[in-house]
Amino acid sequence: MAAMQTTLTARYTANGNPVAVIELAEEQLTAPADGQLLVKMLFAPVNPSDINMVEGTYGVKAALPAVGGNEGVGRVVATGGNVSGYAVGDLVKPPGARGTWRQALTVPAAECVKLPASLTAEQAAMLYVNPPTAWRMLHDFVTLADGEWLIQNAANSAVGRCVIQIARALDWRTINLVRRADVVSELEQLGGDIVSVETPDTFKQIKTWTGGNFPRLALNAVGGDSAGTLSKSLGAGGQLITYGGMSKQPIKLATGPLIFKDLSYRGFWMTRWYATHPAVERDEMYAQLAKLFVTSQLKIAVEKTYPLTEVKTAIASALQENRSGKILLDLR
Amino acid sequence: MAAMQTTLTARYTANGNPVAVIELAEEQLTAPADGQLLVKMLFAPVNPSDINMVEGTYGVKAALPAVGGNEGVGRVVATGGNVSGYAVGDLVKPPGARGTWRQALTVPAAECVKLPASLTAEQAAMLYVNPPTAWRMLHDFVTLADGEWLIQNAANSAVGRCVIQIARALDWRTINLVRRADVVSELEQLGGDIVSVETPDTFKQIKTWTGGNFPRLALNAVGGDSAGTLSKSLGAGGQLITYGGMSKQPIKLATGPLIFKDLSYRGFWMTRWYATHPAVERDEMYAQLAKLFVTSQLKIAVEKTYPLTEVKTAIASALQENRSGKILLDLR
Repeated sequence: MAAMQTTLTARYTANGNPVAVIELAEEQLTAPADGQLLVKMLFAPVNPSDINMVEGTYGVKAALPAVGGNEGVGRVVATGGNVSGYAVGDLVKPPGARGTWRQALTVPAAECVKLPASLTAEQAAMLYVNPPTAWRMLHDFVTLADGEWLIQNAANSAVGRCVIQIARALDWRTINLVRRADVVSELEQLGGDIVSVETPDTFKQIKTWTGGNFPRLALNAVGGDSAGTLSKSLGAGGQLITYGGMSKQPIKLATGPLIFKDLSYRGFWMTRWYATHPAVERDEMYAQLAKLFVTSQLKIAVEKTYPLTEVKTAIASALQENRSGKILLDLR
Repeated sequence: MAAMQTTLTARYTANGNPVAVIELAEEQLTAPADGQLLVKMLFAPVNPSDINMVEGTYGVKAALPAVGGNEGVGRVVATGGNVSGYAVGDLVKPPGARGTWRQALTVPAAECVKLPASLTAEQAAMLYVNPPTAWRMLHDFVTLADGEWLIQNAANSAVGRCVIQIARALDWRTINLVRRADVVSELEQLGGDIVSVETPDTFKQIKTWTGGNFPRLALNAVGGDSAGTLSKSLGAGGQLITYGGMSKQPIKLATGPLIFKDLSYRGFWMTRWYATHPAVERDEMYAQLAKLFVTSQLKIAVEKTYPLTEVKTAIASALQENRSGKILLDLR
């Protein structure tokens, strides 16, 4: 590896339409110094939040120029001095702030996250954002009883599909709202108990679906009318957790149910969770998620994999509706 | 008291406009049996929630016919056998479900609440709803530091005025939004740190008012645009607590701040708090509030007092805007 002097990256020097502003660029690659790792990247997904970061519309902004991508996995190929806890061959997630759409990087070990060795490289590349978002929303708000119902919109999204599978594995039941009838049977096969195309009358069916055991947890990535549907579906003490706003419409809350049904409306942002929780909690969660991956109770479908040189095509694919899986970059 | 066979009540046999449906009616009064108290009423307020109950627009409905009023105070004038903890002369709040707009009632002691003897009858009559609502909202959501800012709309309401006074006594600072300039100096004298007529640009002033220490607690009794103003005024981790919806407009929430600023939106209903917390917590709160009353750190202004026979006029007065105090019924 000593001969490697530069590495290819997909970077941007200005915010804007990602297909336009992303460009391939070489970056200097130094040998790992004390406390550093040399990591050769394997896979990185193209997530909606990555696209928003490039656009400049995300909750945090990158200092420019920046390399795209926040999530991904690489393998340690060399270590500097005084590195403990990491060895050549380990699967690691490099820090998102450095950008993951790249072939390699030299990085302080302290900024990396070691990923469970039981995972395939593709699974590990998608462990950081979507499955933990689903996991945390299912664990950190309402304490669900065995067999209890929850409801979500955007059920065909990557997080939505993780919610279905994790809930099934942990014995909770899901009502899954989607926009297109053609995904219903696929999500049912994935383990969704109820999968239904959302209409303005959807909330009237909740009682029938659940036998009157109204959900106390609703997961919202859409906003607008769909958030209203979730809100109207909640039983007493219910919580609506918002982690996305695809419709770009605000959520409207009626005052009465908020007060008399004791509802709560909260936001969830995985980035903040990582920033405010110790590594031991993160690793505990990874261990639980890795178990589900290894037993195939949790799968993340990949729509298509592109080499880094085709990053613009990959982004264009990720921007398309009607996908049924992730877009991955193969960085090897 | 043995000669008292009936008692005058203000009751309703159908929901509707309270001025129309409320009527004076005699009710049989029995001597207190085992475990019962005979209570002669002293004062009862006409609260907005009482009016909503009569209208049939409140979160709970009374079985009809019903006596109006939920709050108020009486004095024990006789006790049945096997009563412990109560003696003739005690100030008590009878159960709201029996209605407080009445001259007397015979009631199980177990359904009554003994009120601090240090209070005047007028203070005791208004201890149950507004001061506890303010107290709980200031204590149960955000843990406020000394000198920390909070913001509220409807600052000139009875709860709003309690919030100002309790916050001042406990060393928290308040931004108070009102609709009318003529109440500003009065609320400043009451202890409001900032009192301002709300405009669409109010949220832009928060930084100046607080020196950049944005409030983490917002109390909303209005909804609609005013709730939006409060929401935009909140700092990271802030909570918007809704306890009323005077504008009858829904609250609109932008998705971004909900997620990235970690905001929460909750409802608060004093009735539920009473139903879900032990008497010891209630009495602890009353003791704290009684201290504030006795030291004049907390006062509830009374606009006017009416005898029970003028209950319709009292209700009409309570329905008027531009009041600056409570409407009380004198039941003696």
